[in-house]
Amino acid sequence: MDPSGEEPIRGESNDSVGPTTSSDPSGEAPMRHETSGEEDVDAIITTTTTTTATATNQNGHPKLQPKTPVPSDIQISQDLVREVGLLPIEQVALEAGILPSEVIPWGIAKAKVQLNSTLQRLSDTPDGNYIVCTGINPTPLGEGKSTTTIGLAQALGAILGKKCFACIRQPSQGPTFGIKGGAAGGGYAQVVPMEEFNLHLTGDIHAITAANNLLAAAIDTRMFHEDSQSDEALYKRLCLGEGGKAAKPFSPIMKKRLVKLGIDPNKSPEELTPEERSAFARLDFNKSTITWQRVLDTCDRHLRKIIIGMGVNETIQRRGTVKGVDPREQHSRETGFDITVASEIMAVLSLAKDLKDLRDKLGNMVVGYSNSGMPITADDLGCGGALTVLMKDAIMPTLMQTVERTPVLVHAGPFANIAIGNSSIVADRLALKLVGEDGYVITESGFGADIGMEKLFNIKCRESGLKPKCAVIVATVRALKMHGGGPPVSAGKPLAKEYTEENIPLVSAGCCNLVKHIENAKKFGVEVVVAINQFKTDTDAEMDAVRQASLAAGAFDAVVSNHWAEGGKGAEALGRAVVAACEASNVENFKFLYDLDLPIRTKVETISKEIYGADGVDFSELAERQMEQYERSGFGNLPLCIAKTQYSFSCDAAAKGVPTGFRIFVREIRSCVGAGFLYPICGDIMTIPGLPTRPGFYDVDIDVETGQVIGLF
Amino acid sequence: MDPSGEEPIRGESNDSVGPTTSSDPSGEAPMRHETSGEEDVDAIITTTTTTTATATNQNGHPKLQPKTPVPSDIQISQDLVREVGLLPIEQVALEAGILPSEVIPWGIAKAKVQLNSTLQRLSDTPDGNYIVCTGINPTPLGEGKSTTTIGLAQALGAILGKKCFACIRQPSQGPTFGIKGGAAGGGYAQVVPMEEFNLHLTGDIHAITAANNLLAAAIDTRMFHEDSQSDEALYKRLCLGEGGKAAKPFSPIMKKRLVKLGIDPNKSPEELTPEERSAFARLDFNKSTITWQRVLDTCDRHLRKIIIGMGVNETIQRRGTVKGVDPREQHSRETGFDITVASEIMAVLSLAKDLKDLRDKLGNMVVGYSNSGMPITADDLGCGGALTVLMKDAIMPTLMQTVERTPVLVHAGPFANIAIGNSSIVADRLALKLVGEDGYVITESGFGADIGMEKLFNIKCRESGLKPKCAVIVATVRALKMHGGGPPVSAGKPLAKEYTEENIPLVSAGCCNLVKHIENAKKFGVEVVVAINQFKTDTDAEMDAVRQASLAAGAFDAVVSNHWAEGGKGAEALGRAVVAACEASNVENFKFLYDLDLPIRTKVETISKEIYGADGVDFSELAERQMEQYERSGFGNLPLCIAKTQYSFSCDAAAKGVPTGFRIFVREIRSCVGAGFLYPICGDIMTIPGLPTRPGFYDVDIDVETGQVIGLF
Repeated sequence: MDPSGEEPIRGESNDSVGPTTSSDPSGEAPMRHETSGEEDVDAIITTTTTTTATATNQNGHPKLQPKTPVPSDIQISQDLVREVGLLPIEQVALEAGILPSEVIPWGIAKAKVQLNSTLQRLSDTPDGNYIVCTGINPTPLGEGKSTTTIGLAQALGAILGKKCFACIRQPSQGPTFGIKGGAAGGGYAQVVPMEEFNLHLTGDIHAITAANNLLAAAIDTRMFHEDSQSDEALYKRLCLGEGGKAAKPFSPIMKKRLVKLGIDPNKSPEELTPEERSAFARLDFNKSTITWQRVLDTCDRHLRKIIIGMGVNETIQRRGTVKGVDPREQHSRETGFDITVASEIMAVLSLAKDLKDLRDKLGNMVVGYSNSGMPITADDLGCGGALTVLMKDAIMPTLMQTVERTPVLVHAGPFANIAIGNSSIVADRLALKLVGEDGYVITESGFGADIGMEKLFNIKCRESGLKPKCAVIVATVRALKMHGGGPPVSAGKPLAKEYTEENIPLVSAGCCNLVKHIENAKKFGVEVVVAINQFKTDTDAEMDAVRQASLAAGAFDAVVSNHWAEGGKGAEALGRAVVAACEASNVENFKFLYDLDLPIRTKVETISKEIYGADGVDFSELAERQMEQYERSGFGNLPLCIAKTQYSFSCDAAAKGVPTGFRIFVREIRSCVGAGFLYPICGDIMTIPGLPTRPGFYDVDIDVETGQVIGLF
Repeated sequence: MDPSGEEPIRGESNDSVGPTTSSDPSGEAPMRHETSGEEDVDAIITTTTTTTATATNQNGHPKLQPKTPVPSDIQISQDLVREVGLLPIEQVALEAGILPSEVIPWGIAKAKVQLNSTLQRLSDTPDGNYIVCTGINPTPLGEGKSTTTIGLAQALGAILGKKCFACIRQPSQGPTFGIKGGAAGGGYAQVVPMEEFNLHLTGDIHAITAANNLLAAAIDTRMFHEDSQSDEALYKRLCLGEGGKAAKPFSPIMKKRLVKLGIDPNKSPEELTPEERSAFARLDFNKSTITWQRVLDTCDRHLRKIIIGMGVNETIQRRGTVKGVDPREQHSRETGFDITVASEIMAVLSLAKDLKDLRDKLGNMVVGYSNSGMPITADDLGCGGALTVLMKDAIMPTLMQTVERTPVLVHAGPFANIAIGNSSIVADRLALKLVGEDGYVITESGFGADIGMEKLFNIKCRESGLKPKCAVIVATVRALKMHGGGPPVSAGKPLAKEYTEENIPLVSAGCCNLVKHIENAKKFGVEVVVAINQFKTDTDAEMDAVRQASLAAGAFDAVVSNHWAEGGKGAEALGRAVVAACEASNVENFKFLYDLDLPIRTKVETISKEIYGADGVDFSELAERQMEQYERSGFGNLPLCIAKTQYSFSCDAAAKGVPTGFRIFVREIRSCVGAGFLYPICGDIMTIPGLPTRPGFYDVDIDVETGQVIGLF
């Protein structure tokens, strides 16, 4: 399993030193790029480009004329800046209903939105229509979920004149320089400037790196000092000043630990008994239980598994401060780096409801267990406040704009395989208030609906209390052909002719995958609109087959959409279908798949049977022990975030269509107690990708005269 | 040697598990904080606080009334925001002569300044007066260099009505959560909001982390792929597409390598001979020569020395792709992390003259040597363009304001011990143009003048062509008493009574240290003004002794300054002295200490004898070999950045005053070919600090209602 966002096979192929690809991982088919230079002007484009260069959209803004062949993403983004211009971000905010005092401009065409004050002002405003954009099980090339999210938002906002926000995730920067590709959407349905979106953004992921690694350093530092100091010495350094007198009363973070230990928090530090001092000062880590890793937002396979503390050993050997102990045994240990977006702090960012909740969740993160089995939290290490301070700006969503100047909130970036794969609760909440009762918020869910949408509904919506009305499920003829039995689709290799020529039987056979996703979504009580993300080689008959299968499966509607080539205009029909679906939907019908107070085992079984279509679930001995430990520690009532492949309903990436007769094997169950979920792991986990032989960075450079970025995508 | 900025002894004490301190590392004596609560209203404050709450400064801005006792730094910063308000950053820019189109607001009360357009517009404007603020060899508590830089800028700008910029470094965030203390100045001479200054700033250091670690991953990835692929396979993946045909011509970065190898860069990729292909594709790292480390902006001693690649070994063992080779031998190696500010990319940021120069320097960074001794650069790895793209925002200096609303440019943050210890060339250039002929730019140099100022003059000014007029040397009675033979000064321990009671003989004896720094500065042809940074316990007689010794040594003036307690008003006399010194100074007198084309050996000897007062220099065998290698590789004509303790003119931190009869021992000579210097190492290097038992993060939290940061300093 690969955490590089939506690009797992390419990630995997890095390790097998395989060929790389120049395809665009934003979900757009590389075929389009590859062939666009050889085609005549596309008929569809011709009919839609009757407006002049000074044409305006419904929202009154000048509009970029789509070109054929469709240029590269960065070219479109730079064309827009040059030919139409960006709307000043303060103006984007104002048109979206955000007051100037609530906006903090933050770099080039980006701004942070003040959270507390804006939500307070709008507390009485009813929420808008909440729509999730998700997809079928994708090919390794991606099926255009981000692009459809942005295209649909452009249709609703710039073409149909609705109040509308797209809420998408910040991409990890690591893969940007490894396997080429961004996550700003693509073609004429993208967030601009795309280089600003894909590089650094407003620093949220960097803040997570800093916070995650401060906590990691705090863990190793504490073990180091506990190994070399008596309880009394530790306690003195932690709580007492010169001469053993309390320099000051216990800090709030220390009182939290005292309460946890059953010690009266109103005592002054010098009043604790020796036993209480020991209990307070010695966290007594069971080193084998430490699950907290360090992180970097870089693709670096050599950091996956490392041995740290070699220098500490040498220092101690030299100084001889730990006598009679083999220093190497003592202070070096095996651990590893994850890519930053895999950090629990990223999951916390996406699930925190406000600043206070952020503080609580960060403090409650469990990093390991003591030798007596007690969970050790960030606040036990004295670190939760500092982590929150490091994250104080990151909790504010970032405002940007689409190529058609409609507003986008970019926030959080967890992977869908090992985390919840959705943008943040606060971005969705803010957007729903800003658009108001008649407006629309489209939030994007990672990977296929079996993981991204399921986690949105069962974890994120449960935490937020927000009720979606409609699920837009993105399907492509290409992916359905694959599910119908077409040859394998691999990044970097030419597509087989089955994918470039009409083949109705293959499409029809593959629609089973789409049908199962539609049925799954309907179990949650939402209306389903299928977005058929159009490729140049798709024929009308193929697309009609998809449409008929969708309607037969109970979809509210199924609409062909051509936003990649045409922008919002290309998604106008999709937009109208979504509006109608929302009108037909009743949020009171929205329901979760399982109750939290069921045993962990039952919850895993429910998701596996109901969503994946498995016959049942088997648990490893480790997973059995972990279930027992979590239920004993009071974590049994958390929702579940199942880690598994996105390429199949099952755990076998090669099982296309709708596999049956399989069981789910849970190898391990990890916990994200602060973020608020458990994650059963079904398959290999690769939590930091590697770079290929010829990484994307070879093409990236800057025009030193203009400052223009070259070759990013 | 400790890279945690100005706090080396505290950094060192982390490792010996020693006591920590709550003193402020911005250079302000903790004594002030510790005793301020017990004092009556200070007589000096009373005389200077005759203005009312609505009083305005010379620049017409409302002024914060200094309080006694002086509150904590964060309290002053938050008082200012509440009582006076910040000037909108666009307004700070406008008053400083920066056009609205040249300013990019970047977070709370911060902005980036467009570099190219602003410098182009001002290209005909004469430079202002260039002043360096440096210091004597400090105590571990710091002597107030940053605070004096800011206080002097407030005096010149807000009190004397001059056009004036302070140029200071961005602090490393790591130590912020370890040993308490920021770097925004202190008291009523600080940059505000101080939490915005000390946390993330505008992300420059994070960008360096990302760039540095991308290059590190590129190195290990390349070695990994070179170990497991034939030359032809490597070449094919790097340069050829499907079927062995060139997908596209060589990219500019590839052509650079072709030229270096003597291969015609106008050939197309398929035209290269097998020998040329091998030479191009196989960098053939001599692994023992790799000097490039990974970085994090975190204090984490366990990352100092690590073994990476354990997971790669396991993957290869499992897949068996490298047959007959012991995988552990093959792909794991010992390396380590430095703190981000120690990265060569930080040095490049401080020495780059513009975007083009940044691109060149980043591409030219040497990360190691091939088995045949050829230097391998970032551009050889195909990485220089991507590094520049990651640094495209970081090259723009960040604009902030002082408590008296005068402008500050914050940029770069290299340590003075292992790098050049100065803010950036671009910030200084920009500020000098913005203030114009009659204005003043004060740039701060790290640590003592023997390292920070020497490097400013010989490296930074040589690279920039900018000529300073005046050096402000900060001295404190406390530090001079230490140099005169007073008892040791340690962080976290109470000061001996010698430091809190009048002791003229001790001060007078210690003035030798200050005198030597004055003499050194004058060797470069600048005027010297001594700033006696006043502490509450300093007596008039003590301060007069310092003044007399300074004047006798040839200082243009020596002035008592009380900006910490009084802000700009407290530094008014210092400001007038600096103005007079600049008027008396002639930039044509400015000269370097050594010529670049001297042998490396001679350059080291010149600095050691002339600046440190050494009798001579001894070189290790390694250093001898390295000198030979550098001279052979064409790096012999680089300036030198000597790494040594800041506590003494010699390499012995305990040798106070002006040591004599010593020799400098050069253990090793590293290179920063991209940044453009060699650094001879004299002493132990600790390039990533650790955390103490009770890190500063215990006190840091956030008020979840107001979002206010608590307990930062």
